Amino acid sequence: DESSVESLDYEVIENFAYWEEQAQRGKLYVWYYVVVKWFFALLIGIGTGLAAVFINLSVENFAGWKFELTFWLIQKSYVVGFLVYLLINLVLVYSSVCIITQFAPAAAGSGIPEIKGYLNGVDIHGILLFRTLIGKVFGSIGSVGGGLALGKEGPLVHTGACIASLLGQVTCGCAAGVAAAFRAPVGGVLFALEEVTSWWRSQLMWRVFFTSAVVAVVVRTAMGWCGSGICGHFGSGGFIIWDISGAQDDYSFEELLPMAVIGVIGGLLGALFNQLTFHIAYWRRNFLHKRGNRVKIYEACLVSLITSLISFGLPLLRKCTPCPEYDPKSGIECPRAPGMYGNYVNFYCSKDKEYNDLATLFFNTQDDAIRNLFSAKTSHEFSAQSLLTFLVMFYTLAVVTFGTAVPAGQFVPGIMIGSTYGRLVGIFVVNFYKKLNIEEGTYALLGAASFLGGSMRMTMSLCVIMVEITNNLKLLPLIMLVLLISKAVGDAFNEGLYEEQARLKNIPLLGSRPVYEMRRMTAKEACGRRVISFPRVVKVADVVSILQSNKHNGFPVIDHTRSGETLVIGLMLRSHLLVLLQSKADFQHSPLPSDSRGSRFIRHSLNEFVKPASSKGMSIDDIHLSSDDLEMYIDLAPFLNPSPYIVPEDMSLTKVYNLFRQLGLRHIFVVPRPSHVIGLITRKDLLIEE
Amino acid sequence: DESSVESLDYEVIENFAYWEEQAQRGKLYVWYYVVVKWFFALLIGIGTGLAAVFINLSVENFAGWKFELTFWLIQKSYVVGFLVYLLINLVLVYSSVCIITQFAPAAAGSGIPEIKGYLNGVDIHGILLFRTLIGKVFGSIGSVGGGLALGKEGPLVHTGACIASLLGQVTCGCAAGVAAAFRAPVGGVLFALEEVTSWWRSQLMWRVFFTSAVVAVVVRTAMGWCGSGICGHFGSGGFIIWDISGAQDDYSFEELLPMAVIGVIGGLLGALFNQLTFHIAYWRRNFLHKRGNRVKIYEACLVSLITSLISFGLPLLRKCTPCPEYDPKSGIECPRAPGMYGNYVNFYCSKDKEYNDLATLFFNTQDDAIRNLFSAKTSHEFSAQSLLTFLVMFYTLAVVTFGTAVPAGQFVPGIMIGSTYGRLVGIFVVNFYKKLNIEEGTYALLGAASFLGGSMRMTMSLCVIMVEITNNLKLLPLIMLVLLISKAVGDAFNEGLYEEQARLKNIPLLGSRPVYEMRRMTAKEACGRRVISFPRVVKVADVVSILQSNKHNGFPVIDHTRSGETLVIGLMLRSHLLVLLQSKADFQHSPLPSDSRGSRFIRHSLNEFVKPASSKGMSIDDIHLSSDDLEMYIDLAPFLNPSPYIVPEDMSLTKVYNLFRQLGLRHIFVVPRPSHVIGLITRKDLLIEE
Ligand SMILES: Nc1ncnc2c1ncn2[C@@H]1O[C@H](COP(=O)(O)OP(=O)(O)OP(=O)(O)O)[C@@H](O)[C@H]1O
Ligand SMILES: Nc1ncnc2c1ncn2[C@@H]1O[C@H](COP(=O)(O)OP(=O)(O)OP(=O)(O)O)[C@@H](O)[C@H]1O
Ligand SMILES: [Mg+2]
Ligand SMILES: [Mg+2]
Repeated sequence: DESSVESLDYEVIENFAYWEEQAQRGKLYVWYYVVVKWFFALLIGIGTGLAAVFINLSVENFAGWKFELTFWLIQKSYVVGFLVYLLINLVLVYSSVCIITQFAPAAAGSGIPEIKGYLNGVDIHGILLFRTLIGKVFGSIGSVGGGLALGKEGPLVHTGACIASLLGQVTCGCAAGVAAAFRAPVGGVLFALEEVTSWWRSQLMWRVFFTSAVVAVVVRTAMGWCGSGICGHFGSGGFIIWDISGAQDDYSFEELLPMAVIGVIGGLLGALFNQLTFHIAYWRRNFLHKRGNRVKIYEACLVSLITSLISFGLPLLRKCTPCPEYDPKSGIECPRAPGMYGNYVNFYCSKDKEYNDLATLFFNTQDDAIRNLFSAKTSHEFSAQSLLTFLVMFYTLAVVTFGTAVPAGQFVPGIMIGSTYGRLVGIFVVNFYKKLNIEEGTYALLGAASFLGGSMRMTMSLCVIMVEITNNLKLLPLIMLVLLISKAVGDAFNEGLYEEQARLKNIPLLGSRPVYEMRRMTAKEACGRRVISFPRVVKVADVVSILQSNKHNGFPVIDHTRSGETLVIGLMLRSHLLVLLQSKADFQHSPLPSDSRGSRFIRHSLNEFVKPASSKGMSIDDIHLSSDDLEMYIDLAPFLNPSPYIVPEDMSLTKVYNLFRQLGLRHIFVVPRPSHVIGLITRKDLLIEE
Repeated sequence: DESSVESLDYEVIENFAYWEEQAQRGKLYVWYYVVVKWFFALLIGIGTGLAAVFINLSVENFAGWKFELTFWLIQKSYVVGFLVYLLINLVLVYSSVCIITQFAPAAAGSGIPEIKGYLNGVDIHGILLFRTLIGKVFGSIGSVGGGLALGKEGPLVHTGACIASLLGQVTCGCAAGVAAAFRAPVGGVLFALEEVTSWWRSQLMWRVFFTSAVVAVVVRTAMGWCGSGICGHFGSGGFIIWDISGAQDDYSFEELLPMAVIGVIGGLLGALFNQLTFHIAYWRRNFLHKRGNRVKIYEACLVSLITSLISFGLPLLRKCTPCPEYDPKSGIECPRAPGMYGNYVNFYCSKDKEYNDLATLFFNTQDDAIRNLFSAKTSHEFSAQSLLTFLVMFYTLAVVTFGTAVPAGQFVPGIMIGSTYGRLVGIFVVNFYKKLNIEEGTYALLGAASFLGGSMRMTMSLCVIMVEITNNLKLLPLIMLVLLISKAVGDAFNEGLYEEQARLKNIPLLGSRPVYEMRRMTAKEACGRRVISFPRVVKVADVVSILQSNKHNGFPVIDHTRSGETLVIGLMLRSHLLVLLQSKADFQHSPLPSDSRGSRFIRHSLNEFVKPASSKGMSIDDIHLSSDDLEMYIDLAPFLNPSPYIVPEDMSLTKVYNLFRQLGLRHIFVVPRPSHVIGLITRKDLLIEE
């Protein structure tokens, strides 16, 4: 498993090949490069936007047909309705899990831990393939349409990243995914900034923002186009926008206490969620899923059956509530018209003027359920008992569903859970502070924020996303307060959801700051003892045996000066060595170095050595060399990276860590203290005018 | 002048003192440290919020009284009204310029270039003193209240930074300032992120956001408290919030063309603004202001007189326009009630049902003028002729005012200019596309964004600020489009306003990416040739003479091993040497190194050597040593930084630049290539669990 993880290398290798390329390019190339990057950003935006529209359109239509059919059937028979409902869900989930297990195993789960890993500097095999993209798109249509307790937001982020990876800009894609999922361009950028990328170049920001905005425009255009009804059920629901700008936008100081309580609940439930999912995922990974794909399929189908049973069965047990009087100001009908989206679902009620509050939550798409929970001017729509039942059941379902072999996001389930207990608190507040103008929906929103904060531990990006999806800037300070508390409470127990999952998947994330112990360690203590290095001109047989004897990916190259002293001349990557071995073009008979860089004729296509190639898919065992070849030599000088970053042996590990992390490195050489200083570089030396 | 600029040093100096301190602290200290930091963040938020409220309250009241009095007087005599108006403005500006010239010279201008410099790693003398804070607060009340063509936003950012600097967290303060100026917490964070800081630690982000949100809460609370009218004129105007959420929030594709035109105009006018202000400021700096403070005072007073004359005189020349019919939907009265804020100012009009459109813009606080320009449902309020007149006059005033010795921001003038031509374009669009639902106010908003984009070249933060101040998320893609164009157009001509001004002020900013030429240079070529270094044990007389002979701030320290080879043992800072020389406590008679770090008793208080001290205010010439002292020795080993970052001599300057810039360094040692590699550090070596 470990072998599927490999570090990424962003180093510029200033070797002979690089200088050749630079010489050919000249300054105009920079412009060309900029234009291409922006064009790619545009493409990523459009691509991610369209993918998001496609997923939403499909999900909404599948779910829409499903509910329409079921509602039509239950007017005749609840048993038939239930069976059909169960069957449709099962088919959708089955198709999803089949796509994942048979076609694109890397597309299971949310994908965010993997993307996080990628942008932290580790490549997980298969995570950004085209195949994964396809699997993710179609798989998430099945799993979300099939009514499981999961969302399509995580998968959308992964989808965006896959699309962007085709064009080499994963960060852009990640932001685009969030922007598409929530129609929140600013939130998308902040998400990429805060949660995902480890090292950020400020010139990247504007481009990422541009991509997010393109996504927003694409999505808006598509929705405008579908507004007339030509897209079936899409247009009325879908993209999660809970516009509660009409809701309570002021608050009094008495309310801060219940809001703080929501924050604490969010922290506790969120941390519990992380803990439970960690253990279950651990068990799944190490026992259940080891038994093969068939078990994964059975498992997903079983979860689908349970989910259908609960979401259909529980509302049946619930007594209906009489409708409130019609309030022309809010314009909300009770019960809602058949085949429509909205509050007050009439389900298994005997009389006409009744509704089933549990069905309003359960027997609905998640987006609609959340919209109902967030809705203003609907106090007393939900009884505390129903909310509590729903909370417990849905929380359990979300925990159990997490980790099945289907594409699954945790945003929407998190919002569901959070807004349920938020509304529950809201009910008590409304009862308690009778005279205040309080909306239960506001509390539901704060609950949602608190649960996400307690589980994912995102801060600023989450805050902005919540503001953007609810389109209400005035709630910002309240959301902040709640997030601050829930994150602090959650942090007391465990790490964030994505970090936990990354740990489970053996993705070695480097945190943003060095751990405390590093202060007392030196670079020398941290690194391995015996260095495996190459001489400048090396026998092919030696290369082969060294590469076979270990799994290291970088090797120092040592040369001798004329006076016989040794000198480190650079770093040779395993991947480049493999290219050299495979092509054989640069083998030479003489064990002497070729004359000088420039004059030497390099037979190899240089392009391969400009960038650190990934050794993915190539291994030393795949290369077959004749015994003649093995007797030849290679001069490594033109291909190596002549100036890797170096640190003196007794530098503390904190400083090394900062260097490694801030510059996104893969290898650092630990060297002895220098004998003298050739010069000092200060700010003044770097102030070179263009 | 150059000597007032000094680099900042964020290096951790892992010397003996540091280890002592670490040993004393232990792990609990980390918690204490975190709590203190958050508490400080809270304080900064509250402080900046209160400062902003105080400035706004004062400005609004001064301006309110001024206009009230003038309006009351002109009902009797326009001449008397004019004289009083002129006099009040003059007094306010005079007091402002006196505060600046006599008391806090560093508080002149916007302060943003200096803060930018600070966070880029250069300390400009006096820029963050308490005295500067006071000067900034009171000075900007005078200059803004006095009706000059400048804003209070830049000064507020500086104010925030000063407050934060007292507690050692300038970045937080900078974000808080923006948040306070625009009531835009997210925009504040992004501003700090994008425009100001050069190196960002992701753990900082949440704290910065927290501070911004605290500011938002403080400001909101104060405004709520003043809502009842107890704060005089404050509450009705002030904090720039132009809520146009009722305005056009949809757009058709035909409109994209005029919007692009606005972007181009913004780019051109913005670049022109930067160019003109650069030249005028250059002239001021090198000729006018060299003549002393009296000239500065005369200049500011003259500018005030001209501004008063134009803003009172020009509307007089303008014929009044008959009022439009009263529209109960918009609820806007014409002419506005006396003593009120609003559209349709009746100024020098003969009849009752008339208003003066030029006075509506000119004879008003800037905030109100902008509110009028942004207002929806008021098509045809302004004639094209008036807008053009206003644009030309105000643009000229803004250029001339920029650089006078008063606190001055460029945000609000920029918004004024931009929204004027934006509305002008809007008028044509409304006439041209008659059937569409178009609001001139929307175009004014886009114009404002375009001018700021064309001048300041900020992108994402500006976008978010515009969205937050107009409280309308739906315009985001349009604002983006306009900004993208105006920034691109502006970039074709010159740098952003703040970069230009920083250049003028000799603030050596390091851009976010290395310039192209650096690719072809090596570290050795960039640094100075002859290194001035110290031996480990050095004679005091030598220290003095070396420090006197140059202005360098860091010196390598070279020791000899037993076998006689040289060895670089660290970097000694000038500031630390000065401390040693001044206290004399660590002088020793023997020229031999003291035994070892640990056993040696250091007489000096170690605290001074843990952090890189600033040599500000201390110079080698201030230190007086007896001839006995000069014969003594100092062992530098316990005080130096044992592991500065090093680069091999032939590393390309691009890589050195990235190292310097990303880690926020002050000194890098250029050393010879190492003779061998002791070990390699990879990701695996840094994965140490806490
Ligand atoms: N050439 C080498 N000689 C000796 N030890 C090495 C060498 N290269 C790496 N090491 C050590 O071996 C361990 C693993 O090295 P490896 O190259 O596999 O790096 P890694 O952390 O797994 O990252 P990557 O994803 O690049 O493989 C590290 O502890 C490192 O210090
Ligand atoms: N000890 C030294 N020996 C020789 N040259 C040095 C030394 N220190 C610095 N220099 C060179 O002198 C020039 C100016 O050095 P200085 O120390 O003043 O740095 P600076 O860029 O002005 O930044 P600072 O704000 O720290 O002074 C730089 O070009 C640098 O390469
Ligand atoms: Mg490895
Ligand atoms: Mg200097």
